[in-house]
Amino acid sequence: MQNSGPSVAEILASHESGSGSPTKTAARVADAIAARGDDGTWITPVPRDELLAAAAEIERRPGARTLPLYGVPFGVKDSIDVAGRPTTLACPDFAYTATDTAPAVQRLLDAGALFVGKTNLDQFATGLNGTRTPYTVPRSVFGHDMISGGSSSGSALAVALGEVPFCVATDTAGSGRVPAALNGIVGWKPSRGLISTVGLVPACRSLDCMTLMATRIDDLDRVFEVIAAEDPGDPWSRPRGPRFGDGTVRVGLPPESELEFFGDAAMRTAHSAFRNRLRGLGFEEVSISVAPFLAAGELLYSGPWVAERLVEFDSFLTAHPESVLPVIRDILSTGYGFDAIDVFRAQQELQRLRSVVARMWADFDVVVLPTIGTTFTVGQVLADPIATNTILGHYTHFGNLLDLTAIAVPVGLTADGRPVSAMVLGPALADDLVLAVAARILDEPRTPDSGAPQAVTDAPHPAAVPRSNIRLVPKENR
Amino acid sequence: MQNSGPSVAEILASHESGSGSPTKTAARVADAIAARGDDGTWITPVPRDELLAAAAEIERRPGARTLPLYGVPFGVKDSIDVAGRPTTLACPDFAYTATDTAPAVQRLLDAGALFVGKTNLDQFATGLNGTRTPYTVPRSVFGHDMISGGSSSGSALAVALGEVPFCVATDTAGSGRVPAALNGIVGWKPSRGLISTVGLVPACRSLDCMTLMATRIDDLDRVFEVIAAEDPGDPWSRPRGPRFGDGTVRVGLPPESELEFFGDAAMRTAHSAFRNRLRGLGFEEVSISVAPFLAAGELLYSGPWVAERLVEFDSFLTAHPESVLPVIRDILSTGYGFDAIDVFRAQQELQRLRSVVARMWADFDVVVLPTIGTTFTVGQVLADPIATNTILGHYTHFGNLLDLTAIAVPVGLTADGRPVSAMVLGPALADDLVLAVAARILDEPRTPDSGAPQAVTDAPHPAAVPRSNIRLVPKENR
Repeated sequence: MQNSGPSVAEILASHESGSGSPTKTAARVADAIAARGDDGTWITPVPRDELLAAAAEIERRPGARTLPLYGVPFGVKDSIDVAGRPTTLACPDFAYTATDTAPAVQRLLDAGALFVGKTNLDQFATGLNGTRTPYTVPRSVFGHDMISGGSSSGSALAVALGEVPFCVATDTAGSGRVPAALNGIVGWKPSRGLISTVGLVPACRSLDCMTLMATRIDDLDRVFEVIAAEDPGDPWSRPRGPRFGDGTVRVGLPPESELEFFGDAAMRTAHSAFRNRLRGLGFEEVSISVAPFLAAGELLYSGPWVAERLVEFDSFLTAHPESVLPVIRDILSTGYGFDAIDVFRAQQELQRLRSVVARMWADFDVVVLPTIGTTFTVGQVLADPIATNTILGHYTHFGNLLDLTAIAVPVGLTADGRPVSAMVLGPALADDLVLAVAARILDEPRTPDSGAPQAVTDAPHPAAVPRSNIRLVPKENR
Repeated sequence: MQNSGPSVAEILASHESGSGSPTKTAARVADAIAARGDDGTWITPVPRDELLAAAAEIERRPGARTLPLYGVPFGVKDSIDVAGRPTTLACPDFAYTATDTAPAVQRLLDAGALFVGKTNLDQFATGLNGTRTPYTVPRSVFGHDMISGGSSSGSALAVALGEVPFCVATDTAGSGRVPAALNGIVGWKPSRGLISTVGLVPACRSLDCMTLMATRIDDLDRVFEVIAAEDPGDPWSRPRGPRFGDGTVRVGLPPESELEFFGDAAMRTAHSAFRNRLRGLGFEEVSISVAPFLAAGELLYSGPWVAERLVEFDSFLTAHPESVLPVIRDILSTGYGFDAIDVFRAQQELQRLRSVVARMWADFDVVVLPTIGTTFTVGQVLADPIATNTILGHYTHFGNLLDLTAIAVPVGLTADGRPVSAMVLGPALADDLVLAVAARILDEPRTPDSGAPQAVTDAPHPAAVPRSNIRLVPKENR
């Protein structure tokens, strides 16, 4: 196991050159998954023979070799439907076999991508830590008995382990960014509505976003070109925003005194070092206060939005309380304590904060923050599941409430070998801009055309792509 | 009493020419109000001597004669603060003396306008009929013991009686349009956020819009140029949309079979006649279904939004239940019956309807509907206050939930002498377009520049302005 798995571009190039093929890739993926045993990454991986057959089918498809994701393997968070496969939400008694494939996933399949399986998650996508599953509790690839992060725990691991170059997951309050941070990969929550959420079992429908996890921006660009599409079936669907031009980007940075690391001095030091490096990357730095952002996060944590999860799960929870993990049951049950007035009052306050933050964007283009302030072991989370989870969401809780686009980017290691992640945030539809900033942080070349559709043969030869100077090798692999 | 009061342009022209003056106008207004006695129009009119003193102060103001609303009298719905005046919301025990003037009103005062007083309303701006007041219950200027409509009952009357050329009122579910319809005037709910709601006691804060009532589009243009402004204190504030150009306007019209007149054959006939006339005005007609619009209105009527009123009134209602009119108490109390899940579920359904309607606008620019399907007498409303009110809101309930701009326009009389009103609706920020369509219906000349700021001397001489061929004279004045 390793996170040195090939990128989308590398896989495409190998399939193009004939040095590899979808069936060879499928075999490699199946071997890699089998070698790990049951590590909590996958809930239902596609069996080896089925995976090889699916790859062979892709190879036989007329014109398949020119498809933009020809034979590229990927995983899907197990809250998203794939026809004929169980959707479990990490709750076996809730599970059902999907009859339809989510349109977002279908677009990948139509582009030649190879579905590898459904990945583990915090039950009902409720949690940021990865321990809330009746299946094997996954661990971060960085060892130390560290949590994987969640709720998209398995999706992050599948990518970080190099099993697949990308996964489709979700992010309602940080579920796509926190596990990316804990596993040293990239986790991007595009603006709500750019990737259809049809076929996703909602966590909190008004806030849910599809998320992409990968190791590099170029892979995100390629996948996003395929997966992004307006969908009349998704009431929040909207068209993409503008491409980023080539002006100077104004990066909003709060004073370090505003940043909370929850006593984690090593993380504070590492983030400070990252900020020093950031200053050399040619951005214009703007000093900001992150207080209004954090206030919106507080509102999510203390407010009535948990009740929105009950729109989906109330009847199941009422009928089968014993089928739900106690911690999830306790959390969801708090939703019953809010009345309608609470919701309207909180939404009015949120609108106030939204308007404050909306005006702030006049002074800067993106904000850069830590993705997480500290890390936890599985034991620490199990001992205090609510407080640790809240700490994990300190910087991510507000992103969806404020309708932002946000990407978690690996930026090094702490002195004691834990992953450090920075988050680039922008206003809704500034997606291409945050990708551009993330690419610069990762030292990936990216032109304004990077995100544009391109033929496979336009892809740079892998050897020509400079590797990030901060690409991480998880400790357990060194 | 009559609705042949002078328009904003006529008043400005008379002040400009010297044939009139702000103090003469003030005296005329005070006389007109006094002549009516307590007819339920005003809750706290400015006393005659104060009004004359205020007019004199305007005359003395340096440069006042060039102000865009120099000496133009106006009324303010009594849910909006004017410093030093009581704000009652038609609930004497709730009343307080305002310490600050609402910024929207202040902009009018700064432009030389003359504040005439606070107008009657349905208590807490809750109602569409005008009978829900502890003060005198107003009647429509069309007689027949017809209700005035509400909640902006007094504002509509003050304009329809010709006492003032315009009023500032509000519209949360039709409160600005229904009383306009019942009194043969124009009631315009601009897109939410174009006129600051700071200083308004909220009815349902997320839906509340300021509204302008007048008799002609030119007056709305002039007032809107002054009153519209972004306000950081209003979380829903946003900039105005584009000016309407000069292309053909596509008017969406549902089949008449979709229109509900609640058994009022005379109203159906009159609306049908209006539609025949509309066909001759040069619009492109597009056949549409109004069902998704009405479904959103149903959601408001049956859903949890009533609980948002309790964000504002819960504590007062709890502490002083006897101070609230029984019908208002009964309505507000239904808000306690909704829980947080109800709100999120209803909002998800609303978002679905919003997305359906949003796609519909690709095929047409505005929709034209009746403003109200029928009229009621005061006795009919008092006998069945909830059902009659629901009928009055049939075509207006959805406008705010769907974030539309909408204007009620008088279009004639029924055979039995009741007012007929058509409503022009457009998507958010299509304000200039709906005004342009309304002007064509009223046969008012309006160029794309009409809404632009213009010096007083640019105003056409009143005699040069063709009067609408459908300008109404209330029956009681004939």
